[in-house]
Amino acid sequence: MNYPSHVRIVEVSPRDGLQNESQVVDVDTKIALINGLVDSGLEHIEVTGFVSPKWIPQLADSQEVVSRLPKQEFDRFSALVPNLKGMERAVSLGLREVAVFTAASETFNQKNINCSITESYKRFEPVMEMARQQGIRVRGYVSCALGCPYEGDIAPEKVAEVTEELLNLGCYEISLGDTIGAGTPLKAQHMFEACLIKAPPEELAIHFHDTRGQALANILACMQLGAHVIDASVGGLGGCPYAKGASGNVATEDVVYMLYGMGIETGVNLFKLVETGRMITKALGRRSESKISNSLP
Amino acid sequence: MNYPSHVRIVEVSPRDGLQNESQVVDVDTKIALINGLVDSGLEHIEVTGFVSPKWIPQLADSQEVVSRLPKQEFDRFSALVPNLKGMERAVSLGLREVAVFTAASETFNQKNINCSITESYKRFEPVMEMARQQGIRVRGYVSCALGCPYEGDIAPEKVAEVTEELLNLGCYEISLGDTIGAGTPLKAQHMFEACLIKAPPEELAIHFHDTRGQALANILACMQLGAHVIDASVGGLGGCPYAKGASGNVATEDVVYMLYGMGIETGVNLFKLVETGRMITKALGRRSESKISNSLP
Repeated sequence: MNYPSHVRIVEVSPRDGLQNESQVVDVDTKIALINGLVDSGLEHIEVTGFVSPKWIPQLADSQEVVSRLPKQEFDRFSALVPNLKGMERAVSLGLREVAVFTAASETFNQKNINCSITESYKRFEPVMEMARQQGIRVRGYVSCALGCPYEGDIAPEKVAEVTEELLNLGCYEISLGDTIGAGTPLKAQHMFEACLIKAPPEELAIHFHDTRGQALANILACMQLGAHVIDASVGGLGGCPYAKGASGNVATEDVVYMLYGMGIETGVNLFKLVETGRMITKALGRRSESKISNSLP
Repeated sequence: MNYPSHVRIVEVSPRDGLQNESQVVDVDTKIALINGLVDSGLEHIEVTGFVSPKWIPQLADSQEVVSRLPKQEFDRFSALVPNLKGMERAVSLGLREVAVFTAASETFNQKNINCSITESYKRFEPVMEMARQQGIRVRGYVSCALGCPYEGDIAPEKVAEVTEELLNLGCYEISLGDTIGAGTPLKAQHMFEACLIKAPPEELAIHFHDTRGQALANILACMQLGAHVIDASVGGLGGCPYAKGASGNVATEDVVYMLYGMGIETGVNLFKLVETGRMITKALGRRSESKISNSLP
């Protein structure tokens, strides 16, 4: 079995994590979280999203958060932008990378961003155009890659088709999201294999939720096919809007422990990461979903 | 990748689970638990242990529990016996299978059962002799197969050596226990591979704890080498005496979900199993460690 020698972890807790927590934390806490993640050695951190404060009040302070982050670390930061307006704000604050998002499910897209999959590409065009002009890197998210809360199973070929489209639009990497954590190892492999027909593993990331406890097993299964970019969230921050009380993103600490045990380098200091996870889960008044964290004194 | 078409799950919650819970439940609750597990379709259930009530008060009612279990289901029941006295009690109650236990770590054995590994074999001899006379099946547990709380790493060859010894003594199957949940997928595979030199996969079971969130990934990794007998505990019952607040055995519900998603048959009805897990975690006043259970309404 050929495993990668290095895995790049994309830490999504400040955005995907916090936006799905009912408790809202203040800017100071967010800055402490992001600084803790930087200090742990994480190479890539999605720090916020320039989204509607009406729909996502958890990220209403995105401008202040980014303006207070250390400038010398901006190479490792990115932010979610739903449209050109968000893109303009991100760029004006000095960010060099953004992320756009769509889904492999028509129904999910209609309910989530009120447009079809094809219409979502149209929205991205001015974002991509500005990105080209300004030399900004754009990451693409594909939700529902392993199932949809409305449509159920999603064909791997559909995920691959959306992936290809986003790459053609100019994204440098596509994050394949198991939004509802419905995947199991063979299903995850079939989806990843379908995407490998359209793109090399260098352009694919896996973004698995642990709703049903399967995330690490699914990550292992996809690493066996060459996956080496993994999205994760410290403390398992974030939940599932479709299942109250369920786990959200896979906990970064547990991913790092697995990779470390397999001799796969991540550049992350697990103990600093555990400290950071404990700080933010305490601030949120919630239990950590990281088992390694809960097992340490 | 050749996965097994069928996996036999050995449900250990009534023994390994309950004995590591600080809360003691009454006999009625234990009977309800075991009946729920039978009704869920589990083929093999370790129902109790004939151990010292002084050291393990959680299992002090083992005699009453077994005497109240449905006789027509005895083929699927087993009990842990530390010595001949325990064996005699198990047999007198009509059980047809027992389990003995030792460890791959000398220090762990000294602290846990106050004897060396070699001395533990001696203790088993009269148990094995009675088993032969009465036609009782004996399962062997090897603790610390992926690490010891005192010695740290344990050589895979040591685990294999103890496994071979227990098979030679007459055990029909050896359960390889990651007692402290320290394993990661490649480590688990190396250990399992070492045991495969001494025994076919039919005689090996994997018993992984989820202390650091790795259990399902480790199970997947070992299934890729032919493992097809998996120990698990509904609701993740049981904790880790070496890490307060940590998870214990892997949750049966999450194992069943993974196997179902991979097209591997277990004979278990997941919804009945989730109900049973909820009943017992409620009785214990604790949160379920099964993520699929927590994700369901």
